[in-house]
Amino acid sequence: MQQFYHPNIDAESASHFFDEQESKHIARVLRKKSGDTIRLTNGKGFFFKGVLDVLSPKKCVVRLTSHERIATQSPYVHMAVAPTKNMDRFEWFLEKATELGVQRITPILCERSERKTIKHERCTKIVVAALKQSLGVHMPLIDPLTPLEDVQTAALSSYMAHCADLPKKALKDVVVNQTSICVLIGPEGDFSNKEIIWASKKQINSVHLGSLRLRTETAALVACHTALVLNKS
Amino acid sequence: MQQFYHPNIDAESASHFFDEQESKHIARVLRKKSGDTIRLTNGKGFFFKGVLDVLSPKKCVVRLTSHERIATQSPYVHMAVAPTKNMDRFEWFLEKATELGVQRITPILCERSERKTIKHERCTKIVVAALKQSLGVHMPLIDPLTPLEDVQTAALSSYMAHCADLPKKALKDVVVNQTSICVLIGPEGDFSNKEIIWASKKQINSVHLGSLRLRTETAALVACHTALVLNKS
Repeated sequence: MQQFYHPNIDAESASHFFDEQESKHIARVLRKKSGDTIRLTNGKGFFFKGVLDVLSPKKCVVRLTSHERIATQSPYVHMAVAPTKNMDRFEWFLEKATELGVQRITPILCERSERKTIKHERCTKIVVAALKQSLGVHMPLIDPLTPLEDVQTAALSSYMAHCADLPKKALKDVVVNQTSICVLIGPEGDFSNKEIIWASKKQINSVHLGSLRLRTETAALVACHTALVLNKS
Repeated sequence: MQQFYHPNIDAESASHFFDEQESKHIARVLRKKSGDTIRLTNGKGFFFKGVLDVLSPKKCVVRLTSHERIATQSPYVHMAVAPTKNMDRFEWFLEKATELGVQRITPILCERSERKTIKHERCTKIVVAALKQSLGVHMPLIDPLTPLEDVQTAALSSYMAHCADLPKKALKDVVVNQTSICVLIGPEGDFSNKEIIWASKKQINSVHLGSLRLRTETAALVACHTALVLNKS
């Protein structure tokens, strides 16, 4: 089963025209035929069924036959993560977190960040591909690269995972019975002391992720999955 | 902090000679000096401290000064996973599962496996690198590619995650209060009906991993982390 995505489809839409690139993919790669039923999402919680009409390998249209609204999943998980020096590792995190159902990812710029730029468009492309692949209908919000101090969150509880030798609890022990969670993960060199003090002033709780030393992207995925698996109904 | 690895070091060892490649790495890349303290493991639960003696960029030796035995972590988690068609994705799973503390990985050959061979030596190399990186001291056992029906496990509870439309519970709801767990994850095309029937005869419980469709390697990592996070003391 394939799922297609376009943000502009809504409950009022009667049909949707695919662009040239996607039409070619539908006709030539997926070898779809007129009359085939397909599944689409707008990434805003709706999924649609429709009947395909392959007019040409450059022009495909789908007649939408039904739609369903899927409630946003609980808990709400927002990850604020410093992109890794090796971008592949951060992109891998974007893909996996989307598969798991993360709702927002803020790439953050920290004092010790080695990577100081990201291509937002490429990040979005990876997340769209993962949403389609996983049959998800809630497109995560991907923020532009944001200085740590400017991170805003709608989450009720926020946590900062770091390796500094300070008293802190395991994320898995404190992240239970929560409905909305934000977790901050620093760069390869960890958060600086200044950043850890900033967080404590903001009521962001220091946590650890266990005794093993995790790579940045592993820490981010582990924190995201911990928040989800311990709070999903 | 770096950690070095060699399986032949044990509690009786007084010193360890690094081979030419590792000596070069120590002297030229890490720029270690004689007198530096380093950390080593044999992957069998021991970690060692020692004082380095850089004789030349081709010959380094470490005098072992102390050792500590770290108890095996509970729960014992054994993952039996069909390698993905794209080997990068399976290698990624090997790295991440090692970082998390998996204890055994059996690459399995299933009816619908597209990948029918793996390079065992390369898999071991990735796992060694991840063990060193994460400062782990328990080297996971990596089996050769094994036909599904021949998988043996020391785990007390075994689960098969599949997408077939059969009654099954969520792994996270059944994998609690366990000390040893084996989870089977199939290839991209899922386990066949024949394999699912084989599993049920073997008292391997069918489970699902949630409502989203996960890639093979994501499913494997999610299952591994779920088993660990819900049972760690």
